[in-house]
Amino acid sequence: MTHDLTGTADAVRAGAASATGLMQASIEAANGSACTRAFVRTFFESALTQAMAVDLQLEAGLPLPPLAGLAISVKDLFDVQGFPSTGASRAMSDAKPAERDCLAVQRLRRAGAALIGHCNMSEFAFSGVGINPHYGTPRNPVTLKLDKKPRIPGGSTSGGAVSVAGGAAWATLGSDTGGSIRIPAALQGLVGFKNTKRLTPLDGAIPLSQSLDTACAITLSVRDAVLLHEILSDTRVQLTHRPLRQRRFAVARELMQDGMDATVATAFERTLAQLREAGAQIEEISIGPLLELGKLLARGSLPAAESWAWHRQRISEREADYDPRVVQRIRTGEHMSAADYIDVVNGRSAWITRMQAALQGVDAVLSPTVPIVAPEIAPLVASDEHFFAANSLLLRNTAVVNMLDGCALSLPCHTSREMPVGLMVWNTALQDDTVLDAGLQIEAALAPHRQPPALVAAT
Amino acid sequence: MTHDLTGTADAVRAGAASATGLMQASIEAANGSACTRAFVRTFFESALTQAMAVDLQLEAGLPLPPLAGLAISVKDLFDVQGFPSTGASRAMSDAKPAERDCLAVQRLRRAGAALIGHCNMSEFAFSGVGINPHYGTPRNPVTLKLDKKPRIPGGSTSGGAVSVAGGAAWATLGSDTGGSIRIPAALQGLVGFKNTKRLTPLDGAIPLSQSLDTACAITLSVRDAVLLHEILSDTRVQLTHRPLRQRRFAVARELMQDGMDATVATAFERTLAQLREAGAQIEEISIGPLLELGKLLARGSLPAAESWAWHRQRISEREADYDPRVVQRIRTGEHMSAADYIDVVNGRSAWITRMQAALQGVDAVLSPTVPIVAPEIAPLVASDEHFFAANSLLLRNTAVVNMLDGCALSLPCHTSREMPVGLMVWNTALQDDTVLDAGLQIEAALAPHRQPPALVAAT
Repeated sequence: MTHDLTGTADAVRAGAASATGLMQASIEAANGSACTRAFVRTFFESALTQAMAVDLQLEAGLPLPPLAGLAISVKDLFDVQGFPSTGASRAMSDAKPAERDCLAVQRLRRAGAALIGHCNMSEFAFSGVGINPHYGTPRNPVTLKLDKKPRIPGGSTSGGAVSVAGGAAWATLGSDTGGSIRIPAALQGLVGFKNTKRLTPLDGAIPLSQSLDTACAITLSVRDAVLLHEILSDTRVQLTHRPLRQRRFAVARELMQDGMDATVATAFERTLAQLREAGAQIEEISIGPLLELGKLLARGSLPAAESWAWHRQRISEREADYDPRVVQRIRTGEHMSAADYIDVVNGRSAWITRMQAALQGVDAVLSPTVPIVAPEIAPLVASDEHFFAANSLLLRNTAVVNMLDGCALSLPCHTSREMPVGLMVWNTALQDDTVLDAGLQIEAALAPHRQPPALVAAT
Repeated sequence: MTHDLTGTADAVRAGAASATGLMQASIEAANGSACTRAFVRTFFESALTQAMAVDLQLEAGLPLPPLAGLAISVKDLFDVQGFPSTGASRAMSDAKPAERDCLAVQRLRRAGAALIGHCNMSEFAFSGVGINPHYGTPRNPVTLKLDKKPRIPGGSTSGGAVSVAGGAAWATLGSDTGGSIRIPAALQGLVGFKNTKRLTPLDGAIPLSQSLDTACAITLSVRDAVLLHEILSDTRVQLTHRPLRQRRFAVARELMQDGMDATVATAFERTLAQLREAGAQIEEISIGPLLELGKLLARGSLPAAESWAWHRQRISEREADYDPRVVQRIRTGEHMSAADYIDVVNGRSAWITRMQAALQGVDAVLSPTVPIVAPEIAPLVASDEHFFAANSLLLRNTAVVNMLDGCALSLPCHTSREMPVGLMVWNTALQDDTVLDAGLQIEAALAPHRQPPALVAAT
């Protein structure tokens, strides 16, 4: 079985694999130990039916859509017709089955995707950790193989990433408000692309922060990320295939490299050296506005105010059904005034303008996606203090790109003997094609130095 | 002297009038009794210099830009290089001269406009009345000729409208947040066009409500409104010139015709009859969502929250320098929560969708711009109760279009023996060209029944 989504679709098209067989393997993986607690509900029957239909179409010589019956998992906040969306929360136990697919799911189906289930996540997409008290916390299947310790999957798209790393899905539809696609991708050795928010639709999805939420995907390769972005944004990505020696990258002197653990520091430095060797121009530059975010958010954050607006009625009715750590974070928006909120909105706009000026002329900025490797689950379950400290560190780099209204690709840059480490390639709004284009070149340059992405079920 | 802006520019171009002569007449009118209290500061010297330069260009056979040295006045909230912008408020007495023109003013200058001064306004653009305690209230020059009673000019673009009706300016640059262009246009027999917000720039302008503010103009004719809109939006208006018999207009059964005084009711009914006679299809329809606005705004308004955010620092330092009625309105945003603000933003979006559905298929809706003719100044100065009641009635119809993110043209529909009455032609966002196109046809159909716009200085 190939690990490459489009390769797999090509294999189905070429008759080298049957869609039904691939789907059966996906379902087996979803039921396997690597994917324990990755799903909150599954749609196996309809997914299998759809895969069989693809094989019949193939037999009949009909053309196949790009995803051709491949298994795609969906974060439990996107509406799938006939099923409830519950944000992996007990507080949504009254949710009715959705009357129609949300727009992102419609686009996936139109491209031939077979949806296999709603995935576990940090409750209501809060936290980059991935701990969920209602459905349990899926273990990071990649790190588990390396040191046998149950480590966090990363969040909030925790189960979605596990479904991909665990071989149950070729890609997962998730959301990214502060890093929720890129953090689990980085911690599990996968590819996560957070596109510019306005390019993909959020209709029919439970919101966290309407200013920052983005609908996007985790995949096994950058090539797959390009395809999924084309499907979700309903556009074509323009690829120049310019070689690395014609590209200019920046590394931020401020913030982004602070507090790296030894594994991340080693992988990041080695990666920069490899890219330089491949001809890329990489300059460490000062991006002063990176240090201004704390002041900007001193009187409150957009997610706090916006999630309080959405949840306040429900919290007043059934607070006991929420994860207390999630309620605690939502409640930080309770006493924020409209004027403070407006100041943050306007301060953010002005900050984006300063960031755009600082990033003028670079193809992308390179940073560690997350400065640490996946921590163990148990201490973070046991201690609020450890949980919130880890969460801040996990989100620190990725959240910058959401505030920037920008786009960012996380791709693996570790060796098979190291814990997974993500390299984040990022830029300002609407530079999506440039970032993906550079990502393809970077992935190719790093390939000789690393193993293919870990796929637990296949090993 | 012609009353038509482009006609005047054409006359200059044809050598039939000198730009210098026209500017001298403008300055004389600005100093005349009709324009008393219309300006808070004047730029006569530079305007005259510019007009002389136009005449020299003409002599040299050089091509002239569209406005060719014509006098344009500017509301005292748009930055003009070298002068402070004070929102006609004593609370801005510390404002420094602007370092550069705001973007709207830049576009006017690029089109050849000669700026003659900053105009008086309702303090910080609050209220549709036009009373200003710092600079005094300009009288409505058109109604003054009819019944000798000092009546309100309408606001908030009060002085700007007076400068046009009084012969000092061929057009005025103003802003419209709830009706501030259309109300004074209607009460003074002028043309006011509030374009779709996003089409014109607000950079370098003192905001009232960042969600609702629009930069736009008051002119003497719809033809001039088209030209000014093209200049301010930096686009070309697409005119189909479809005749009225190919147009379908709606009249709202709800809200818009409530509480009309006898003059407005007579003029509005007569106008509908005249347009029907000219072949227009006009249907009274139900626009149910018009009745939902009260509920939507029950927990606070966008202007309240947004103006409090902008003014709170200044109010804490120098509240005594504000018009107490303006502070009272700004303070309604003081205790609004971020969540309530977000609910209004989202409730507005959903309401716009319902309005769009209700207006599907009509060229425009026809309503009275304002349901009453200009009230007398003195009782509104004397009584807060009368002031706020009148203000609500003045803003009621026009503010709907701001909440709709729509566009609206107000054009005169009274006879020369009647107090001025405005007909509002409006539709949803980005229907600007349709509304202007229809406005040209309506203006032509009504022309035989009315006198040209009053131009006090020329009589």
